[in-house]
Amino acid sequence: MSYGDTAAVVETLRAHFGERISTAEAVRRHHGEDLSYLPTMLPDAVVFVESTAEVQRVVAACAAARVPIIPYGVGSSMEGQILATAGGISLDLSRMNRVLAVHESDFDVVVEPGVTRKALNEHLRATGLTFPVDPGADASLGGMASTRASGTNAVRYGTMRENVLALEVVLPNGELLRTGSRARKSSMGYDLTKLFVGAEGTLGVLTEITLRLHPVPAAISAAVCPFDSLKGAVDTCIATIQSGVPIARIEFLDDIAIAASNHYSKMSLTVAPTLFLEFHGTEAGIREQAEIVEAIAAENGGRGFQWATQREERERLWKARHDSNPATRAMRPGAAMFVTDACVPISALADNMTAARADGDASFLKFKINGHVGDGNFHVSYLVMPDAPKELAEAKRLAENVVMRALESGGTASGEHGVGLGKLKYLQREHGNGVDVMQSLKLALDPHAIMNPGKLGAPATAS
Amino acid sequence: MSYGDTAAVVETLRAHFGERISTAEAVRRHHGEDLSYLPTMLPDAVVFVESTAEVQRVVAACAAARVPIIPYGVGSSMEGQILATAGGISLDLSRMNRVLAVHESDFDVVVEPGVTRKALNEHLRATGLTFPVDPGADASLGGMASTRASGTNAVRYGTMRENVLALEVVLPNGELLRTGSRARKSSMGYDLTKLFVGAEGTLGVLTEITLRLHPVPAAISAAVCPFDSLKGAVDTCIATIQSGVPIARIEFLDDIAIAASNHYSKMSLTVAPTLFLEFHGTEAGIREQAEIVEAIAAENGGRGFQWATQREERERLWKARHDSNPATRAMRPGAAMFVTDACVPISALADNMTAARADGDASFLKFKINGHVGDGNFHVSYLVMPDAPKELAEAKRLAENVVMRALESGGTASGEHGVGLGKLKYLQREHGNGVDVMQSLKLALDPHAIMNPGKLGAPATAS
Repeated sequence: MSYGDTAAVVETLRAHFGERISTAEAVRRHHGEDLSYLPTMLPDAVVFVESTAEVQRVVAACAAARVPIIPYGVGSSMEGQILATAGGISLDLSRMNRVLAVHESDFDVVVEPGVTRKALNEHLRATGLTFPVDPGADASLGGMASTRASGTNAVRYGTMRENVLALEVVLPNGELLRTGSRARKSSMGYDLTKLFVGAEGTLGVLTEITLRLHPVPAAISAAVCPFDSLKGAVDTCIATIQSGVPIARIEFLDDIAIAASNHYSKMSLTVAPTLFLEFHGTEAGIREQAEIVEAIAAENGGRGFQWATQREERERLWKARHDSNPATRAMRPGAAMFVTDACVPISALADNMTAARADGDASFLKFKINGHVGDGNFHVSYLVMPDAPKELAEAKRLAENVVMRALESGGTASGEHGVGLGKLKYLQREHGNGVDVMQSLKLALDPHAIMNPGKLGAPATAS
Repeated sequence: MSYGDTAAVVETLRAHFGERISTAEAVRRHHGEDLSYLPTMLPDAVVFVESTAEVQRVVAACAAARVPIIPYGVGSSMEGQILATAGGISLDLSRMNRVLAVHESDFDVVVEPGVTRKALNEHLRATGLTFPVDPGADASLGGMASTRASGTNAVRYGTMRENVLALEVVLPNGELLRTGSRARKSSMGYDLTKLFVGAEGTLGVLTEITLRLHPVPAAISAAVCPFDSLKGAVDTCIATIQSGVPIARIEFLDDIAIAASNHYSKMSLTVAPTLFLEFHGTEAGIREQAEIVEAIAAENGGRGFQWATQREERERLWKARHDSNPATRAMRPGAAMFVTDACVPISALADNMTAARADGDASFLKFKINGHVGDGNFHVSYLVMPDAPKELAEAKRLAENVVMRALESGGTASGEHGVGLGKLKYLQREHGNGVDVMQSLKLALDPHAIMNPGKLGAPATAS
């Protein structure tokens, strides 16, 4: 695709947006880098929109001039989703941050895309309801929907796939589309909502998101349990799922990650492969759940649960878990993290994780492994110095092994971080001619490929 | 669209299929009618396929000659999905009825599309796993996926939307496509699986379906509870969902339906608006769940639970629930049922159901109301004599009121029966320009519109 002249579009838009459109280097730089290892790619301009009508205005101008648009939330993408591969306009949605409606009886909420998950839960505090999807970062809900994000609670509450009920979307031609409804289920036509969830801004701009909410559980308990082996921890997870226990979180950290957390978060956890567990339910229910899982763990080399029943203890524990990434980075100051995201059928999880660990142990790179093991999703995080091409090459080699093993196991290259630029080269390997189908759908909705070019729906290329 | 000559394609295919291709009137008739009130529409021929390769052979021949293909499972569609609006070939998939793989540790199963849900659960009997989606009829799993079916268990286990993990599809050009993987979640590109689920055979033919399984609960209990009013029953349902009780089934039958069931199923239930409830969990868990719901019911005019704890009692009770439709038909021998399928946000459910009841009471038609009330989905079933155009017109009038109220409430015209021909006229009303988007997607994959013509993706027309 060849694109039009962004400068002319900027001039057109300036009359309306004034200081809310910027071509300043610092602003463009901020919008041209995310949490990935990928090089910065600057947009030509950034527009700070405040309403759906303003989104339509920008999209219509860009559509007329064939200028690229890259939707931007808070920049917490993990695979370069917001990088401007072909310049154009970064559409900053962070000021569209209103919670538009809370329907308490219906367990749903309508938000603008710039609302972050923490801001939403703050807003919901008095309702007894919660939005549980938790990818760690305080991501925008538009970004989370667009990358089909999940995190530590997905084993019980699902991912963004299950929790987005309806959308308002500005299509690539500037038209407004409403998908879905507030009904819990529908058989009324193609599931357009699910098509836009995970589309990474390549099919349109999300301007309103209706999300499913869940009741705050009456009781919560949390525990950590160190294991003799990685396999024992993963087998405990499998048996827990099979038992039907509705566990809310079952997270794995390897011994390297635990040592890093002890240092960074001032914890004194046993340095061993470890499960972090959380139970939601009634008082009696969570006691029963915990007894079942404790027995399973004991049979699999678990060294006993350490409980965190008080809220402060529990929050300290989960803060340590959430701070595992900065803790890992602190193992090697100045290093960036190169993170894999494979997700496999759970029966293949222990083998995939064990192989990744052996691969890493045989390499010169530092790394840690953690996993949302209830979903079969695990991350290997390699510490790589920027400007050390050998290190990056080694991380890419190890990560490719992780992906190939996952695909051979019937899994996926990305459980929750998305494709972006980093995983684009695996799209064909994973989906075969499905990539052609994706391109057909993309071009049906965005014939001039102005929406987030170079990403999903673009001709597959190596990164 | 204009279509090609089916007779020529039949001649081409006969060399391979021999007696498995039929143009006999009786066979065509059997494949030209479903469970709806809609008039029979015969295909020109029926092919009984036995493998994916044979499906590809038929599709390729039809694609070359531009002849319509209508995928057919067991013919239990509720909205005319399998009617041959433009002749062509009915592709009978019922002989593709093998369970291809059961992955017990991964809680998934791979089936051919002709496997029925009862056959699948029979196959799973020794595994401790179950496939819970239960629309009542012993539908084929290909048909259930294609209409995004659900039923009595969806409140806890989800619909086909949540339970189809991956698909093999023969595309309209005869190519084979695999969507999804056996991983529990993925962020690796557009969700093609969800695009084909609910597409009613208009985008391709499902030839393999990977389904999520669930553990058979350790303990099950069931109860019925009559209420003073419809509203009391629905309010009990709302409060139950809000309490976080993971209820497995919460089904409503109105007093008319109960009276019919008493007569047909030889039950002696109190004739009143009634909830049928089922609890799944541990022994202690289901006791606790039931106590919470029993208290909620008592506050809402519930007249006490009648328990069915023994398996036989429970099965008898649910058989009566499942036989509600024949029981209703027995109220007026010879009559067909015209069934609505609205689904609304649960806060609007009591009002929608009450209005439907009042509308029906003021009409000369006999009817009953039942509902999967945990999902906000309810059915009004009008008894209509075939060849009584006034009765059909009255049923259509009443049903249109049900749809319009549902849409005004933020709901959907179809919770689980699909669009077919019966709901096509509401597609535009519900989705607006979403219908244009659906048409674009349809034509991107099926440019000659050979897949199930006259249904989804076709220009919207009144039926």
